[in-house]
Amino acid sequence: MAAWRERLAGVRGVLLDISGVLYDGGAGGGVPIAGSVEAVARLKHSRLKMRLCTNESQRSRGELVGLRRLGFDVSEAEVTAPAPAACQILRARGLRPHLLIHEGVRSEFDQIDTSNPNCVVIADAAEEFSYQNMNKAFQVLMELENPVLISLGKGRYYKETSGLMLDVGAYMKALEYACGIEAEVVGKPSPEFFKSALQEMGVEAHQAIMIGDDIVGDVGGAQRCGMRALQVRTGKFRPSDEHHPEVQADGYVDNLAEAVDLLLKHAD
Amino acid sequence: MAAWRERLAGVRGVLLDISGVLYDGGAGGGVPIAGSVEAVARLKHSRLKMRLCTNESQRSRGELVGLRRLGFDVSEAEVTAPAPAACQILRARGLRPHLLIHEGVRSEFDQIDTSNPNCVVIADAAEEFSYQNMNKAFQVLMELENPVLISLGKGRYYKETSGLMLDVGAYMKALEYACGIEAEVVGKPSPEFFKSALQEMGVEAHQAIMIGDDIVGDVGGAQRCGMRALQVRTGKFRPSDEHHPEVQADGYVDNLAEAVDLLLKHAD
Repeated sequence: MAAWRERLAGVRGVLLDISGVLYDGGAGGGVPIAGSVEAVARLKHSRLKMRLCTNESQRSRGELVGLRRLGFDVSEAEVTAPAPAACQILRARGLRPHLLIHEGVRSEFDQIDTSNPNCVVIADAAEEFSYQNMNKAFQVLMELENPVLISLGKGRYYKETSGLMLDVGAYMKALEYACGIEAEVVGKPSPEFFKSALQEMGVEAHQAIMIGDDIVGDVGGAQRCGMRALQVRTGKFRPSDEHHPEVQADGYVDNLAEAVDLLLKHAD
Repeated sequence: MAAWRERLAGVRGVLLDISGVLYDGGAGGGVPIAGSVEAVARLKHSRLKMRLCTNESQRSRGELVGLRRLGFDVSEAEVTAPAPAACQILRARGLRPHLLIHEGVRSEFDQIDTSNPNCVVIADAAEEFSYQNMNKAFQVLMELENPVLISLGKGRYYKETSGLMLDVGAYMKALEYACGIEAEVVGKPSPEFFKSALQEMGVEAHQAIMIGDDIVGDVGGAQRCGMRALQVRTGKFRPSDEHHPEVQADGYVDNLAEAVDLLLKHAD
């Protein structure tokens, strides 16, 4: 593999995944990953541009700033997240969603008309993915002539302090199969979603690098948009990811701190 | 389409799906579909052989005989169901399952060693498909070097008196996607499962006809085994099934009573 200098040449903007890169979620708000608080601070005070690009859909952007309680110096304005992107789509297409989402993100949909639903929106709903709630979403879809299912991300799983947890993608697949439809994904790895994060950061894809713990959603998704991507060996990283049959990261690093070291040394 | 006489010539054995053909499930044990009690009785007293071939995996064979309470003259010995077939597989391969199943079918697995699981078995668990239970099954699979997921059927949905309900297939797909694996299906439309029902009935595939409400699992599955198959317009039948892109039944009938009328008139 080429030297880091070559692999990181010309990088001007850095997209960071949050869960599994900045912190591991869990009871009491989770715990920061060692060195990540300082790494974010160093990045923000560097010449590189930084933006958080997350599929987090359990909590609203406002609450994401609970990251600050963990010591991260980040603001709501620095976050690209699927819920506001979905709201734009719903408004633009006159869609009235039945929401199968976590209570923590419901406030993001406060201004959306949810009467007489003509689509279903699912997010990482965790405990709210009960049989009853899944069945209700299924029944809404089956009664629509042209069923529309919008999924905030299609992640397989994420890591909490207590272990790996099923993510929205698994439940998206359940509804796709049951209804014989294909969901529209808002979030990584949707190209539109990455592009909006790039636009907000003001850099071109070839000048940007994604740092994530998800080999398919973060790394593969970013690469398909023309970005470079590093995988951290934290969060849901598994050793088999380094031999993934389809996706090869531009580099593997132990954690965000190592990624930032390398970027500050070799990028731009 | 050919005349019924031609389509039913040479039929000597009849496989009946249960849910949606004999009765619609629901609170209090469900309700028989009009004319089905008498249709089963007429079939049993005819020269045709009859066997129930079900993916029912919420209730044990013992309880299936609760069908008798609805007026059906059937015995446990006349039923081919996935749970006992799965037990045979588990024993033959030395598999110790983590069970994500409905309480009503747990007794079928009484003799199976479930210590230190090296596979997961899922069935139509209904309310027990909680996020917590799904996550537990997912975590068991992710910790296995060679994860084995056995699914009792892969139905998309079934019909209860209260409406369409998600079936085990949707949850099978969720786990397949999350773990990056493919489940082994025990039940319709698995050819082995149909063949064991034929063997128990003692007729060849070309002498048998399946009657079901599931265009893919019942009709398509039976046809792929060399049987003929009729779809009833009861249970989860939907008008679009008559124009299914892949499966065309050998005939569509309003209900089991009409199917039995035709069989008694034209078969054998």
